[in-house]
Amino acid sequence: MTMSAPKVLSDLDAWLSKNDARIFDELFEFLRIPSVSARSEHDADTRRAAAWLHEKLANIGFTTETIPTAGHPVVLAEWRKAPAGAPTVLVYGHYDVQPPEPLELWTSPAFEPAIRDGKLFARGSVDDKGQLWIHVKALEAQLAVRGTLPVNVIVIAEGEEEIGSEHLAAFVEKYAKRLACDAVVISDSAMFAPGIPSILSSLRGLAYFEITVKGPSSDLHSGSYGGAVVNPAMALARILATMHHADGHVAIEGFYDDVRPFPDAVLAGMRSLPFDEAGFVRELGVSALGGEQGRTTLEKLWTRPTCEVNGLLSGYTGEGAKTVLPAKAMAKVSCRLVPDQDPAVIERLMKAHVEKVAPAGVQVAVQPLHGGKPWRADLDGRVFDAARRALAAAFGREPVIVGEGGSIPVVGDFERVLKAPVLLVGFGLPGENAHAPDEWISVDNVRRGLRAMAMLLDEYVA
Amino acid sequence: MTMSAPKVLSDLDAWLSKNDARIFDELFEFLRIPSVSARSEHDADTRRAAAWLHEKLANIGFTTETIPTAGHPVVLAEWRKAPAGAPTVLVYGHYDVQPPEPLELWTSPAFEPAIRDGKLFARGSVDDKGQLWIHVKALEAQLAVRGTLPVNVIVIAEGEEEIGSEHLAAFVEKYAKRLACDAVVISDSAMFAPGIPSILSSLRGLAYFEITVKGPSSDLHSGSYGGAVVNPAMALARILATMHHADGHVAIEGFYDDVRPFPDAVLAGMRSLPFDEAGFVRELGVSALGGEQGRTTLEKLWTRPTCEVNGLLSGYTGEGAKTVLPAKAMAKVSCRLVPDQDPAVIERLMKAHVEKVAPAGVQVAVQPLHGGKPWRADLDGRVFDAARRALAAAFGREPVIVGEGGSIPVVGDFERVLKAPVLLVGFGLPGENAHAPDEWISVDNVRRGLRAMAMLLDEYVA
Repeated sequence: MTMSAPKVLSDLDAWLSKNDARIFDELFEFLRIPSVSARSEHDADTRRAAAWLHEKLANIGFTTETIPTAGHPVVLAEWRKAPAGAPTVLVYGHYDVQPPEPLELWTSPAFEPAIRDGKLFARGSVDDKGQLWIHVKALEAQLAVRGTLPVNVIVIAEGEEEIGSEHLAAFVEKYAKRLACDAVVISDSAMFAPGIPSILSSLRGLAYFEITVKGPSSDLHSGSYGGAVVNPAMALARILATMHHADGHVAIEGFYDDVRPFPDAVLAGMRSLPFDEAGFVRELGVSALGGEQGRTTLEKLWTRPTCEVNGLLSGYTGEGAKTVLPAKAMAKVSCRLVPDQDPAVIERLMKAHVEKVAPAGVQVAVQPLHGGKPWRADLDGRVFDAARRALAAAFGREPVIVGEGGSIPVVGDFERVLKAPVLLVGFGLPGENAHAPDEWISVDNVRRGLRAMAMLLDEYVA
Repeated sequence: MTMSAPKVLSDLDAWLSKNDARIFDELFEFLRIPSVSARSEHDADTRRAAAWLHEKLANIGFTTETIPTAGHPVVLAEWRKAPAGAPTVLVYGHYDVQPPEPLELWTSPAFEPAIRDGKLFARGSVDDKGQLWIHVKALEAQLAVRGTLPVNVIVIAEGEEEIGSEHLAAFVEKYAKRLACDAVVISDSAMFAPGIPSILSSLRGLAYFEITVKGPSSDLHSGSYGGAVVNPAMALARILATMHHADGHVAIEGFYDDVRPFPDAVLAGMRSLPFDEAGFVRELGVSALGGEQGRTTLEKLWTRPTCEVNGLLSGYTGEGAKTVLPAKAMAKVSCRLVPDQDPAVIERLMKAHVEKVAPAGVQVAVQPLHGGKPWRADLDGRVFDAARRALAAAFGREPVIVGEGGSIPVVGDFERVLKAPVLLVGFGLPGENAHAPDEWISVDNVRRGLRAMAMLLDEYVA
């Protein structure tokens, strides 16, 4: 293990360097616990991970409690001895991990952490135990070196992130007063590229539907009936084809009405990122990209809403030929949303659109299956300024602003309930295999992350 | 059992009336043999049905042979003692039946024939043992009453019709000289309505394809990638939506080029049929019919080509929401063809169309799975005139000309190889459950059919 972390703050840096081996040893311990939240046979392991974390937070001086939920418990740790008037920072992370299967594709076992080529391989290394650990040890560094923290700190770690954070929103609502804070900090995302610290400033929302088209009361012989009966599968195809204009724009009336343009500075920042479009195309194995004309790929992925087919099913799908005129057809269709689109509004627009374009002779239904609001950080304010300075010092360059095409619903919940800005600052990297075999986190990112997050607290009150 | 058959020809009619009980008793024997060609556990039964039929044909004076094929055998029976210069008629039928399942939906067991309300219920009653039996007994009547037949007759009965007549075309080719004839007569179809004798004058052909659209090399997260990658399921929907114009016409370039219009007299005849459109709509359970504007329903079903989706499959099709951007999408698409469309030409046009409309960013393939030529009778000539007279006498009204939207590939094979016109004259009825539980044939239709088919031979040389 080589030591290449920069000298950012002599006192914290020295402590972190001196304790480097122990920091990783303990992280290895954490990673060895197979806290697979999705598997009931791992319930005891998941509880053990919570207890292990509880003990570590208590040991560094946090008042710690493990609070049951209807699912896996939340570990809540508080340190409230900052000077009067000091702000409060809430750190969120999760101690549960994805299932490790398929096991045979792991180079070293999923729950036996191993470092190769500067990468720490283990299930949970980057998602999210390793990133949560960065915060715990940054707090320990502050407390060990100075005996105090410059801000009040709340840590909450849940055990159900990988199964949908089902009980977290209710938890945050229930404990809203106790969780009151000036900023939320989450490290559960990735940097744009090695060496480029990144602040994640936007997440897309979701409005997911099942569209069903019903025709005749049973499957018909396509010879005996074809040509006089409206074919539900063809009707579905025609309905889906009306959802985009030829230029890739979504054609649902009113779809873009609530889209608030991203600030020019953010868009300009995205355009300046060293995005390897050829590599992206190669990785996907496609001959060309698609989507809205006149937008860059990152703009499409991070700042623009979509309408995608996620699934199709109708009639005969086995081998060979069966001459059936299907009685029904089904599509799963979902829209990714950007601020200020609302899943409830999109549901109304989708239903109106489908109703408008559905042909006579079939019955069409649009059933909403899932919805989540989009999110965007303002990027102004103390916590963002502090993060910029801390990351710049730890990584030796200014952070970039990135977006994420997917959704992290809990981010919106924190912001809504706690009325506090959320800083998403992640230390993963592209290709980290977060939900796949050979998940890893960069050892260098852990070291720089420790220093950045330790420094964040100082910068927050600077 | 009431006897209501008309007096058409005193000598034949008297014999048929006198032998009515035996005719049905023997048919019951035939129907009790579960000759399910699709099931190997019934192979012995299928052989037994062939042997039974062989014996009956031999007993009435036919030189009979049971000829093996790679599948179930063909029973070939010949009577060639007509006066010099007399024409030869070939009767085709099949002794195999559909599987009887689901057994629990039969009112009386599938292989225990029972008559209720003038309907003879049994698997194979109408498809096709009962209709084949009409010909066998009409021949017996002629031979019993007069000791001779006015024409030479060949009967061939195959045992693989319900599994695609796989070996029949080769059989007809191989025995083409022996099967040489002036007309082919087949009773394996239905009358337009009770009391309305019908000549089936057209069958649609088929060109069946599997269309696959491939995008990224694996399924992607629709959040992380949606909006920048061409979605194969959406691309497939857009491709399918280009296959029809808004007025229901198929939009594939050149699709109608080879369509030879049906004679005005045939179209006028179809328009004059007492078609119960409201009943048809009710039976299907739809709110409206579809297809090409400006055509009647029967015209659409019998005289116009189609393009139908038979199946769709892509991405996630289970319960609930999964945010997948599918790597591929598949549609089964088939065209029903009318004379003189050719499946090979349609394959070329379909491929050209799909290639033309496929978007960049996905790979599209069109694989032909099955093809069959359409067929249309000229309706002129001795056998059709004879059939018209015989049916009119037996049923007390002129026959109507009907079409069929499905395909019977063997009809085209007979015409092509034997260069003889094919008369399709069926005695089934709508709702006869040919491939379903409670299959039946009208007892009255059997009696009238016996008389009509006995008389056909006389009329053929009149």
